Amino acid sequence: MSVVREPFRLGAVSTGSSSRTATTRLLALRGGGGSIRPDSLVVEEPLELRVAGAGAPPETVGVTMRTPGNDFELAAGFLLTEGVLERQEAIRRVRYCGLEEDESQRYNVVTVDVDQPVELAGRRRETTMNASCGLCGTASLELLERRCPPLAAGPLVSAATLLALPDALRRAQPVFERTGGLHAAGLFDPDGLLLAVREDIGRHNAVDKLIGWAALQHRLPLSRQVLTVSGRLSFEIVQKAAVAGIPILVAVSAPSSLAVATAARLSMTLLGFVRDGGGNLYSCPERVLLEDEGPAN
Amino acid sequence: MSVVREPFRLGAVSTGSSSRTATTRLLALRGGGGSIRPDSLVVEEPLELRVAGAGAPPETVGVTMRTPGNDFELAAGFLLTEGVLERQEAIRRVRYCGLEEDESQRYNVVTVDVDQPVELAGRRRETTMNASCGLCGTASLELLERRCPPLAAGPLVSAATLLALPDALRRAQPVFERTGGLHAAGLFDPDGLLLAVREDIGRHNAVDKLIGWAALQHRLPLSRQVLTVSGRLSFEIVQKAAVAGIPILVAVSAPSSLAVATAARLSMTLLGFVRDGGGNLYSCPERVLLEDEGPAN
Repeated sequence: MSVVREPFRLGAVSTGSSSRTATTRLLALRGGGGSIRPDSLVVEEPLELRVAGAGAPPETVGVTMRTPGNDFELAAGFLLTEGVLERQEAIRRVRYCGLEEDESQRYNVVTVDVDQPVELAGRRRETTMNASCGLCGTASLELLERRCPPLAAGPLVSAATLLALPDALRRAQPVFERTGGLHAAGLFDPDGLLLAVREDIGRHNAVDKLIGWAALQHRLPLSRQVLTVSGRLSFEIVQKAAVAGIPILVAVSAPSSLAVATAARLSMTLLGFVRDGGGNLYSCPERVLLEDEGPAN
Repeated sequence: MSVVREPFRLGAVSTGSSSRTATTRLLALRGGGGSIRPDSLVVEEPLELRVAGAGAPPETVGVTMRTPGNDFELAAGFLLTEGVLERQEAIRRVRYCGLEEDESQRYNVVTVDVDQPVELAGRRRETTMNASCGLCGTASLELLERRCPPLAAGPLVSAATLLALPDALRRAQPVFERTGGLHAAGLFDPDGLLLAVREDIGRHNAVDKLIGWAALQHRLPLSRQVLTVSGRLSFEIVQKAAVAGIPILVAVSAPSSLAVATAARLSMTLLGFVRDGGGNLYSCPERVLLEDEGPAN
């Protein structure tokens, strides 16, 4: 067995051919070995939405994690479907208005000018967007790093053990949940032993239940455990795992661009598309043991 | 062709064998006909989370849509992973504290007592839970009904047309998005013609983009259109469709208990699990044309 060393520059995420895709290099794991290959990721970035009522300065309604593209439509649709605005005709103009000090955030802030006064105070709870991230891009990542204890260097876990975790997670779910579509989150030890599993219709809730289970027993940080989730991997899940001190995160489906970039920045080992005996390793391979002498290039 | 009449009591949702499942009756569509059968749904209900700092009264942190079960763990995990609390040891007690006037909401409010002062004001944006619903259960549904125009009685759409929409939606996505996992929302006319498609890493964002597209052209309400979404159906998506006046909603995967109950209450036609030539009709069959003389019992 050998540890994967890091001349491979995993975890670097570059702009893709459209605003919706990014590219990265990953280590494709299969049959005890691995090979480096390029791959595409779905882009996830924060969008801050502001609304400016007649004669009033812009006020922040909330922040959502979204895939860039059609941002003006997203802003208009959100304000109407969440009841901030009652009439489509109230929208006078939609515009980008990025923070002057940070060019990279220029297209992550949208302001909607409307022809009526807007009362946000009373509806703040109702209108805040899916904001478990809650702060705009860079600031959010910095906050996260301040809040997190540094992740433990270990444990070392064999690739075969990691690739078997999603099946073990599924076996721990009752039949209905397995077929009917509840998200599951499971906590495993470095030998692949299941410690706890929690389910929910929301993937972030399943993770919060699992981390809450540990917290109520004063078991945080979970510095020798592996978190396995049934669905896709967003920034939000990486953030929650990092706060709990979890060094290895395994998902059945695709990670987002920001999930990979954040995991790499926090030195978290991230695996996605773990199914059918294979899987993709996106960041920090140092915690993964391969059966042969290392990955082929 | 015949319209499905309503002696079938579709849309009624009952408590299931656990807090995580509910039961309903649906019309299983296949080959131009349909048959009534019972089915299980994943339960989706709001949870309001409150935190009481040392010597202070409870204050609402936010509301999340969740599957009941392990609610105390969910509350503890959320407060820690979202940074409201920094130490697991700060949690003194977790308890249910439902609204006295409404027994059905008793287990939908959780209060966490902590041994330190809690500062929510500055972190409200950061800590608000996934709150596109945003208000507790009953109140939220009532608010929704006030805000929505009544849905149009029509259009009449053939079952065959509805069952073909998810494939048409997938064909309208670029290859990467089809394989890599972006959610899609598509708007169709009653003949199954695609009017617009939008994509996002968040399913609610894809729907908001689509409705925003219509709003910016002053095309709301979409009273003769069919909304098709690539994933599961939550309360949130039903709510957004209703505000836009969309009378028919089609999903590739499972609806939640609250999605079905809300659609039935708002007289929206809801289809789920539409794939491989079949699908389930959960509510308001009056807008659906079958090829034979009606559903078999």
